[in-house]
Amino acid sequence: MTFGTVAILGPGLIGGSLALALAERKLADRLIVYGRSQTSLYGIQSACPMAELTSDPQVAVKDADIVVLCMPIEAMFAFVAPIAHLFKPSALVTDVGSVKGRVERDLAPLFVNNAHWIGSHPMAGSEKSGFAAARADLFSGAKIIITPTEKSSLLADKKSEEFWRALGGHVVRLDPETHDNYVAQISHIPHLIASALVNHAGQEALPLAGGGFRDTTRIASGSPALWTEILSANAGAIARDLNRLIRDLCNLEIILKGVDGIPDKTSLLHYLQKAQDSRSHLYDTKPTSSKHP
Amino acid sequence: MTFGTVAILGPGLIGGSLALALAERKLADRLIVYGRSQTSLYGIQSACPMAELTSDPQVAVKDADIVVLCMPIEAMFAFVAPIAHLFKPSALVTDVGSVKGRVERDLAPLFVNNAHWIGSHPMAGSEKSGFAAARADLFSGAKIIITPTEKSSLLADKKSEEFWRALGGHVVRLDPETHDNYVAQISHIPHLIASALVNHAGQEALPLAGGGFRDTTRIASGSPALWTEILSANAGAIARDLNRLIRDLCNLEIILKGVDGIPDKTSLLHYLQKAQDSRSHLYDTKPTSSKHP
Repeated sequence: MTFGTVAILGPGLIGGSLALALAERKLADRLIVYGRSQTSLYGIQSACPMAELTSDPQVAVKDADIVVLCMPIEAMFAFVAPIAHLFKPSALVTDVGSVKGRVERDLAPLFVNNAHWIGSHPMAGSEKSGFAAARADLFSGAKIIITPTEKSSLLADKKSEEFWRALGGHVVRLDPETHDNYVAQISHIPHLIASALVNHAGQEALPLAGGGFRDTTRIASGSPALWTEILSANAGAIARDLNRLIRDLCNLEIILKGVDGIPDKTSLLHYLQKAQDSRSHLYDTKPTSSKHP
Repeated sequence: MTFGTVAILGPGLIGGSLALALAERKLADRLIVYGRSQTSLYGIQSACPMAELTSDPQVAVKDADIVVLCMPIEAMFAFVAPIAHLFKPSALVTDVGSVKGRVERDLAPLFVNNAHWIGSHPMAGSEKSGFAAARADLFSGAKIIITPTEKSSLLADKKSEEFWRALGGHVVRLDPETHDNYVAQISHIPHLIASALVNHAGQEALPLAGGGFRDTTRIASGSPALWTEILSANAGAIARDLNRLIRDLCNLEIILKGVDGIPDKTSLLHYLQKAQDSRSHLYDTKPTSSKHP
């Protein structure tokens, strides 16, 4: 089975990985990759010989049966609006942005009479960006959230599921608002907090940090410009969530201060245990022994 | 060069790794490993045949030229107090605990006339505990903080540096209080925050989390009992630091809310950029491009 002509718009980490995966799995008859400039397409040429490269938006979309928007959220609307009428009426159009409410609001109306739109968000990535970080197996085993609404067509819903499953993903459906709330908790807030932990540690302390700190803050090496856009596009949900987290941390401060300088060990143990339990359910890691020798 | 008879008290992750590293690097003539019970010594027997295993504290310490206390902080004093007079007067005694102020206060007086005491803290570990997680190369390339005070002997200072260097570590000297403040920032606060991120995310959102969340929260799988003791032993410094972090996060909340619902992107970009810069200095990672295709 193939998906006919697939167009990937934006050859970065996600778009590049999509192109590599589609080629490797032979899922496209034609694979068109659009990049804003020749330079942006340079890497993909040798890594993915079947890809037809173009910097012309019209050429990129006019024959495509599936179009995947892999550009940053703030670039999507300006890119799509002038050419929405050129998409094939039968085409599936989706994206890979990590905020869905705003994308849904901006893009869905453009396709009402032009093609089948549905939002997608692969829960896969890296702190690195650009084609150099792309991998053919990026979506293999990854959760892919698709965000159908009441207005979505059955075709868009079904075809997008088939597309992501063919790439190795596990498809989960959420409405756009729920998606944005969940992703605030599991992606956007962790990103902010990782940056806060780095900014918070003093310059003399930082060089002493071990492997735990390195992993905890890995995502803080992500592109600041890209993440400013992502966090801004979901700022409302993130701010609400951050406020809730701050209240949790104020409670932890009270637990640490305890009474008469004696920390409340029972509450602290309970808190750490709860986190370890959740994580062991999630990642099937065996909790380590808490006994000492 | 060898360090004569080395006694490792507590065959967990750190103690077990020390035993494996000393054996592999042939740094000890005799290697004595103490465990509270026969069960705790089970794993080490086959992995480290040269180790002489014992559950008798006196046997463990009486011939040792170097004694390394690898038990949890709260167990050290009760273990050492009754047998401090049995240590060889020329022996170097150190520990591997991650809080130094309290250890210094409790243990240093026990050794004034008995042996040469100095605190150590290898910045190496894992979210796993127990001998099963031990590795001979755990200290290779790791920062090892030693915490001499005005009362420390030259012998303790010099010999502990030689010992950790022979194991592949990079030795850094800090006074115990500065150590505890730094470690609050780079280890204890990140641990608390990793747990907070897990506890904060909803049960429906958690299963959707990707690799970023997994890494950011890895250390939250550490032993709750062990970490309750560590965090409690440094509760004062951590609470002060957490308060400072909370104020940072309140600022971030203001940035996200912005004016009239428009987030303050300039401040957000600056904040994320600062974290990325610090991290790229620290880990020599090349910052990723922030341009979109």
